[in-house]
Amino acid sequence: MGKVLTLDTINPNMKKIEYAVRGPIVERAIQIEKELEKGQSKTFTEVIKCNIGDCHATGQKAITFLRQVTALAVCPHLLEDKGFPEDAKSRATDLLSACAGSSIGSYSHSLGLEMVRKHVAKYIHQRDGIESNWVNIFLSTGATEAVKMLLELISTTGQGSERAGVMIPVPQYPLYSATNSEYNNFQINYYLNENDNWSLSTDELNRALTSVKEQCIPKAIVVINPGNPTGQILPRRCMKDIIKFAVDNRLMIIADEVYQHNVYQPDKYPWVSFKKVVFEMGPGYSDKLELASLMSCSKGYMGECGYRGGYCELLNFDPAVRAQLYKALSARLCPPLMGQVALEAIVNPPQSNEPSFPLFVQERDNVLSALKEKADITYNALNSMPNMSCNPVQGAMYAFPRIYLPPAAIQEAEKRGEKPDFFYCLQLLEEKGICVVPGSGFGQEEGTYHFRTTILPSVEKMKYVMKQIKEFHISFIKKYS
Amino acid sequence: MGKVLTLDTINPNMKKIEYAVRGPIVERAIQIEKELEKGQSKTFTEVIKCNIGDCHATGQKAITFLRQVTALAVCPHLLEDKGFPEDAKSRATDLLSACAGSSIGSYSHSLGLEMVRKHVAKYIHQRDGIESNWVNIFLSTGATEAVKMLLELISTTGQGSERAGVMIPVPQYPLYSATNSEYNNFQINYYLNENDNWSLSTDELNRALTSVKEQCIPKAIVVINPGNPTGQILPRRCMKDIIKFAVDNRLMIIADEVYQHNVYQPDKYPWVSFKKVVFEMGPGYSDKLELASLMSCSKGYMGECGYRGGYCELLNFDPAVRAQLYKALSARLCPPLMGQVALEAIVNPPQSNEPSFPLFVQERDNVLSALKEKADITYNALNSMPNMSCNPVQGAMYAFPRIYLPPAAIQEAEKRGEKPDFFYCLQLLEEKGICVVPGSGFGQEEGTYHFRTTILPSVEKMKYVMKQIKEFHISFIKKYS
Repeated sequence: MGKVLTLDTINPNMKKIEYAVRGPIVERAIQIEKELEKGQSKTFTEVIKCNIGDCHATGQKAITFLRQVTALAVCPHLLEDKGFPEDAKSRATDLLSACAGSSIGSYSHSLGLEMVRKHVAKYIHQRDGIESNWVNIFLSTGATEAVKMLLELISTTGQGSERAGVMIPVPQYPLYSATNSEYNNFQINYYLNENDNWSLSTDELNRALTSVKEQCIPKAIVVINPGNPTGQILPRRCMKDIIKFAVDNRLMIIADEVYQHNVYQPDKYPWVSFKKVVFEMGPGYSDKLELASLMSCSKGYMGECGYRGGYCELLNFDPAVRAQLYKALSARLCPPLMGQVALEAIVNPPQSNEPSFPLFVQERDNVLSALKEKADITYNALNSMPNMSCNPVQGAMYAFPRIYLPPAAIQEAEKRGEKPDFFYCLQLLEEKGICVVPGSGFGQEEGTYHFRTTILPSVEKMKYVMKQIKEFHISFIKKYS
Repeated sequence: MGKVLTLDTINPNMKKIEYAVRGPIVERAIQIEKELEKGQSKTFTEVIKCNIGDCHATGQKAITFLRQVTALAVCPHLLEDKGFPEDAKSRATDLLSACAGSSIGSYSHSLGLEMVRKHVAKYIHQRDGIESNWVNIFLSTGATEAVKMLLELISTTGQGSERAGVMIPVPQYPLYSATNSEYNNFQINYYLNENDNWSLSTDELNRALTSVKEQCIPKAIVVINPGNPTGQILPRRCMKDIIKFAVDNRLMIIADEVYQHNVYQPDKYPWVSFKKVVFEMGPGYSDKLELASLMSCSKGYMGECGYRGGYCELLNFDPAVRAQLYKALSARLCPPLMGQVALEAIVNPPQSNEPSFPLFVQERDNVLSALKEKADITYNALNSMPNMSCNPVQGAMYAFPRIYLPPAAIQEAEKRGEKPDFFYCLQLLEEKGICVVPGSGFGQEEGTYHFRTTILPSVEKMKYVMKQIKEFHISFIKKYS
């Protein structure tokens, strides 16, 4: 007699989940690292992981202030230590007063510490110039948890045409497709226009929505801005089109704005929040559009992925629906307190009259200016290669170049039962130790091939990564031409 | 035109979620705290929250070693600080070497740091005397995340008799009923026998399973040991019956063993893991039973709820199923690094030849002996009240007394549209500032009424809590008699 749980008896939606950022290429990269450790000879000495937006893993240093606040909250006896600045101490003291039993080892309210939620509201207010009500804000375990809760909230238990439809960009961050699979939502793909810097048009949104008529109940549109994996920043005009489209078609917007600090040419390509644009559009939109905006501690200049901190702000939600969402969140007790500590340090950073301010500004600006430099290096290097083109990296942490593969390479991939860009990326890993993610993991227009690389390794290493990719790419193209 | 998301259009399963531990009584308790802060006059000066197993919130102190390891991992410059002991430094150094980029700000492997998973395996091996393979262990965001993932894994997308059936104890920890609602599992209640110290018999398990014949596809049985909310420790005999029942009826066991350190009379009522008993039963069980065992950083002597750390060990899972579960976990990136740090300190605590050992032992034993004392105080006090009876608190952190309510009290509750024990608990809160959870939030035999109180406040406070409950209880009973 066989197992109780088999591939035939487990949740079929779980089987449909695909998450390429941590898929088989990454597993192979981990294996190669172990082979290198064992002394196996390769043409490279280390695997460089450009597969994931994991800032600290690739050498980015932590923001001192954020870490000091954490250590003080963890070990309050350090509040007596002269080595810690007063502003970090005052943040930690405030946090501990907000914690039950004055300990970060207690649970918080299931939506997060009230103090942190209020500071998030203040941060949003300062950012947008528009009031934010802290009761519309809940703290989450990274932004990931908020995405999952929202896509679960809007899902139906219906099948066929009764399923909830969710519009997602192609290319997209695969958490969205994975979560739609998990909750049986009908995925409606809208394509970003690679030829116009990954912009999107109302025509395309209309085409996408019309194409699924009667196949589902469209409920939401996901927008990632700055773009992941595509690195573009949406112009205001484009955002207005999306908002109008959403209101006209009765869709809520899930705005993934986790890269809001990763903006490399703010004069030329400024980032604005969806909330701000909605309010600029005035009544009919500002009092109507149901919007959920997501933010994370894992990206930006801080890059504290391991803390698993984030928040979500809701706009124009029916209070009864909000209550249902909040109730569901209560069953998981609370988001990690350390993530809340990190978020507090981010939304309430050192002010100009505080002792940590100069170091904080220096560390933050160092990270962001290095990212800007690497965005340029990457863009220029990729566009210098034959059979490759790449849009500018205006924001976020990724380049998503298009690779033009010769037919023989595509045939070879098919022979191996691999997608052509997967084949390309696996060869790149095996030959050069560079780990990137095939475009097929994010979605791409049929017949086009891409990969996503982060721009996170140090400037020197990023130059080396580009050199390795170039060598590999040229020889790969030659081999199959 | 109304909202996109309304109570009629959102996920109906989400609406069914109920989680009493954080329900309306707790919301009212928070409100009363604010009223007290504003100077509103009450017959009490503070709200004492006995609703939730939140150790630090009620004054339990953190284990110094665990906090030191955390602070060192967060601020590695403290490794130079003479105020921190060498063993804490060596744990932090090992943890940082295991982290990508030597930073706890990086993501870990989605199943947790390999080093911590290996140390968990070693801890289990030492505990049970049975080998544990680290590849069967994944780290989780508290134990809650593991519960949710497992109940999602076994759920089907089927309706009616095609739904997955999950046997859960009554009374139960409401995470189980909430999660079954969330994933549309069919809940099969089996009743613990209050008259025999919340034991359970094969007869009752058979009755429960037979009663749902053809109504669902039974797949799993949840067992909570030590019991929550019931505080009993299952005797080996009982565990063997459950294991045999599970194998005979083709059910997997989800063993909630998060209170494995909370055992107050180990000589008389020893705790053993399900895994150990399964192996004692030998082939036919040890090679067959699909078991998932859960552990958490939030309970025990450490009580670090805010860290959100935990693990799950799988036994006899089909590797293909395990791979599907692990894939689904990868989409949420990783469990909080700080929870992994805490778990490391728990499964790899100071050894007798290390400098932190004496303090660690003292702190651990202080917590556990105080809990034992409070278990006795609570048991004795509750049983001294008329119209009340309570089983001994052998383990975990809760007492679950039965209250015998006069008919007039039940009528009054009905008049108010409240469940009788909810009415009782709300009055207790309003009159005495003591916050406990009605038995109806955990499930109870029809026509019986209970509440759950933690035993977490300090010894002095616990005596005060009991005094307040006694005064309230006697006057309540009198009023309605």
